[in-house]
Amino acid sequence: MKHALSHWLPILRWGKQYRAEHFGADAVAAAVVTLMLIPQSLAYALLAGMPPEAGLYASMAPLVLYALFGTSSALAVGPAAVTSLMTAAALGTVATSGSLGYVAAASLLALLSGVMLFAMGVLRLGMVANFLSHPVISGFVSASGLLIAASQLKHLLGIPLQGQTLPELLPSLWQHAHQLHAPTLAIGGGALAFLFWVRRSLKGLLRRIGLGPVAADVITKAAPVLALAVTTLLAWTLQLDQSGLRVVGAVPVGLPPLTLPILDASLWPQLQQLATAALLISLVGFVESVSVGQSLAAKRRERIEPDAELRALGASNIAAGLTGGFPVTGGFSRSVVNFEAGARTPAAGVYTALGLLLAALLLTPALHYLPQATLAATIVVAVLTLVNFGAFARTWRYARADFTALALTFSLTLLIGVEAGLMAGVGTSLLLYLWRTSRPHIATVGRVPGTEHYRNVLRHAVQTHPRILGLRVDESLYFANARYLEDHIAAQVAAYPSVAHVVLQCTAINDIDASALESLETIAQRLQDAGVKLHLSEVKGPVMDRLQRSDFLQHLSGQVFLTHHQAITTLAE
Amino acid sequence: MKHALSHWLPILRWGKQYRAEHFGADAVAAAVVTLMLIPQSLAYALLAGMPPEAGLYASMAPLVLYALFGTSSALAVGPAAVTSLMTAAALGTVATSGSLGYVAAASLLALLSGVMLFAMGVLRLGMVANFLSHPVISGFVSASGLLIAASQLKHLLGIPLQGQTLPELLPSLWQHAHQLHAPTLAIGGGALAFLFWVRRSLKGLLRRIGLGPVAADVITKAAPVLALAVTTLLAWTLQLDQSGLRVVGAVPVGLPPLTLPILDASLWPQLQQLATAALLISLVGFVESVSVGQSLAAKRRERIEPDAELRALGASNIAAGLTGGFPVTGGFSRSVVNFEAGARTPAAGVYTALGLLLAALLLTPALHYLPQATLAATIVVAVLTLVNFGAFARTWRYARADFTALALTFSLTLLIGVEAGLMAGVGTSLLLYLWRTSRPHIATVGRVPGTEHYRNVLRHAVQTHPRILGLRVDESLYFANARYLEDHIAAQVAAYPSVAHVVLQCTAINDIDASALESLETIAQRLQDAGVKLHLSEVKGPVMDRLQRSDFLQHLSGQVFLTHHQAITTLAE
Repeated sequence: MKHALSHWLPILRWGKQYRAEHFGADAVAAAVVTLMLIPQSLAYALLAGMPPEAGLYASMAPLVLYALFGTSSALAVGPAAVTSLMTAAALGTVATSGSLGYVAAASLLALLSGVMLFAMGVLRLGMVANFLSHPVISGFVSASGLLIAASQLKHLLGIPLQGQTLPELLPSLWQHAHQLHAPTLAIGGGALAFLFWVRRSLKGLLRRIGLGPVAADVITKAAPVLALAVTTLLAWTLQLDQSGLRVVGAVPVGLPPLTLPILDASLWPQLQQLATAALLISLVGFVESVSVGQSLAAKRRERIEPDAELRALGASNIAAGLTGGFPVTGGFSRSVVNFEAGARTPAAGVYTALGLLLAALLLTPALHYLPQATLAATIVVAVLTLVNFGAFARTWRYARADFTALALTFSLTLLIGVEAGLMAGVGTSLLLYLWRTSRPHIATVGRVPGTEHYRNVLRHAVQTHPRILGLRVDESLYFANARYLEDHIAAQVAAYPSVAHVVLQCTAINDIDASALESLETIAQRLQDAGVKLHLSEVKGPVMDRLQRSDFLQHLSGQVFLTHHQAITTLAE
Repeated sequence: MKHALSHWLPILRWGKQYRAEHFGADAVAAAVVTLMLIPQSLAYALLAGMPPEAGLYASMAPLVLYALFGTSSALAVGPAAVTSLMTAAALGTVATSGSLGYVAAASLLALLSGVMLFAMGVLRLGMVANFLSHPVISGFVSASGLLIAASQLKHLLGIPLQGQTLPELLPSLWQHAHQLHAPTLAIGGGALAFLFWVRRSLKGLLRRIGLGPVAADVITKAAPVLALAVTTLLAWTLQLDQSGLRVVGAVPVGLPPLTLPILDASLWPQLQQLATAALLISLVGFVESVSVGQSLAAKRRERIEPDAELRALGASNIAAGLTGGFPVTGGFSRSVVNFEAGARTPAAGVYTALGLLLAALLLTPALHYLPQATLAATIVVAVLTLVNFGAFARTWRYARADFTALALTFSLTLLIGVEAGLMAGVGTSLLLYLWRTSRPHIATVGRVPGTEHYRNVLRHAVQTHPRILGLRVDESLYFANARYLEDHIAAQVAAYPSVAHVVLQCTAINDIDASALESLETIAQRLQDAGVKLHLSEVKGPVMDRLQRSDFLQHLSGQVFLTHHQAITTLAE
């Protein structure tokens, strides 16, 4: 009973050993992460098309829920770049950004995603994320990075931009280019240049002027706050919002609201559409979260439990959905900062949530004049690290099939959108996999003279018998390659009219599924119709056990031989 | 040039060798098939919700086109039971049965299906049909048989029935049961009983009263015509149509019309929906056709070319679409009759088309009083052979995963419809396959004392080294199992803190795709972070070639060993 409870609530395991030293480490990490999260939460809310406070809300309750259910000591959940983009894409067709319906739809999306993730965790269906192969993820994330950067141009240039794909954004950019707002560009461009400089050169500079590695690192990490402070001050002192600069504006002070988005009947007609989006967001979020969590755990030789992580992410998203937030996941940058700042347990997340709550209660007035252009600059600098063109070249060299999946996912995501791009990528990688395995290597084998070994006739000087065709299939037999085997054997037997026996050497066959069994039965029947007997040799134990549960062996015109040599010598007599 | 032409038009190959004896055999077969096809074409037109003449049209031009492009000497294309049901299901949501729009949509469906099949043939994409695993096909065909039989109840009972799935048909049946039309039931029930008796008992009876096997066979095959003749005569002499018996009615006399359904702008809004249906019909039709074709070819030790068959079916469907028909495929019963009646070349199909043309010109008046109930009885008797409950038990015994796909496809097809059922089945069988292969067998191996052999520690008494973990993965590494390997190794290393070296024995790894390569890089990196080195042993040649095209081996913290024994002895020092 107690064991079962701690299986579901990992906090019962690490909580028992929670010591003062843990509290110290966790509290320090929480302070660092809180400072980083204030601008980041606002920025991702902007990206998702949500009001700024939603970003803060989405970084509070989810962290507490993760602390109850999660197994990673350093993962920090909250809004992340790619899931925020996917949220914006999903909601763009459902409601108008900024409307009440939009906010409700975002909460519903988080709730749906949370329920799905939790259910997958309970049903141990984490393997569903395997559908997202690395090339698909890589192409999708690169394209998402570009789309996010393109979507932020409207905040950086101060012009209205419509659309969520390149074919929509680019003409819109061209059309509105004349409306360019100089003060916005000055603020946004300045912030962008500064942030790029910080990322590229600041650390090196600080080291050269004599700072230690830790100090240099901390200052570099803190420097972006300078951009926020300076541009906010500029906007405030010059009252730039009067001349058209968009600022964050009034952020409501207070606790996250309690919402029950599922009760909003106006959203029900879109439920199916939202559910599809929620599923894709869940999978992408889970893959990001679990890979970050696993990387960090490995550094301390700990491990995370993927099924528990699914439940934890599910609970976090349900919490986000019920407190006015939007879909969250274990973000890369915040988790790494949490880890490096020394977080020892998921309790650090609870302290971060408390820190953000304090910020929401006390600091929001200071955010009023924060220019949206500065937030956009933060986003652009953050997401350009997602774009990885090197992966294209590497994958091209390594495997053309994988490159195809990568390039297709990348282009379709840019051209027709995140959902369609991702689904097309998943479909393509499955198709290509089936394509690769649907034509297994089938060798015609002959005897190496003077031995009992049988090898490919094309590669070795071997002896064959005119009335016996020996074939070795180098793959398990399943539905994707079953018909190929039918075709191959039909072609071989049609090509060698003298053949009276076909012997399948089954050394490399680890499994025969029901489709392949049907194909074998069909092959046996067709061969019999043509006066040819089908034999098997060297069938593995588990495969033989399974075949004996069917009536294939009873109807087999030929025999099953222990070794291929035995088959050939018996049949040659 | 000439070779290329005969690659595309197989008629140029067999046409050169066409002799008088071929003509004789083909003409006899054509006569038999024509007689069989007249009622069958009308019946399948009824099933597809089309006017009767459309069934005849769909059996003319397609046969001629198949003769140009096809590679099977006995395959007969035309309307078939399952594709006709799918046609009715697809069109039911687009237009009202019997309307002009319905007929145009059916032609467009055939055209779309034809273009897809032809394109798949040109692109050599016949493997796409592999997605339809045997359990999925089996469940789908069984459910289709039941749905077809249920849909014919309206013609057998003379009551209106709405719907295409069991949850629609059954309440409709209950609701309209009181409208039962006695004369229709008498005709339909009588025909049904007679046809079942013919199928079950006639042949045996004829043999017992002394007829030879050939004569008994021919009479049994011809007997159904008797049901048609008798019920038509009854309907005519008693003028049963006056009292509400539905008859075929006036069939237009003449040549098939030339239509260009794609030009019908009113259908464009439904184009995407029709395209999805066309794709599914194409795949199901292709699978049926190619398996019939291959079975018949094997009996004569000939072979068919799947890609050429795709092009031939494509051309046939395009022809059906342009001549007022609906989707066609190589039907099982008509092809078997064609084969057994002695057809030697696809020219038999051309003669059949001519026969049907003559029938359309001369015989249609005789079909006026043919009761629809009789046609429905023919359909029911034909399709009940599709229902194969034995497959359920066999598949259950053989493999639970395959049974799941079978049962799910069967139930969903009955409950929510043919398209959804088929797609759910395909999705499920893919998921189950990924599920099976996503958890490959990974053995921890140790040395068999005194030898250089390494075996599973769980099965053999072997020696292991406390600082070295030897793992053997019994599967190629690809995206579905890459993350499992990450998890497994992370868990193993976390469980054995003394381990400093992990050696992957790669004997069973035939391929490593880009996802698996990324996972290996991640594993290597995480192990390195934890102070553990990753080594490989016994990497196969092609896998090594591929790894050398990446920079994995340069960054590998450990080494690549030729044999596992070499790895262990080197590292143990």
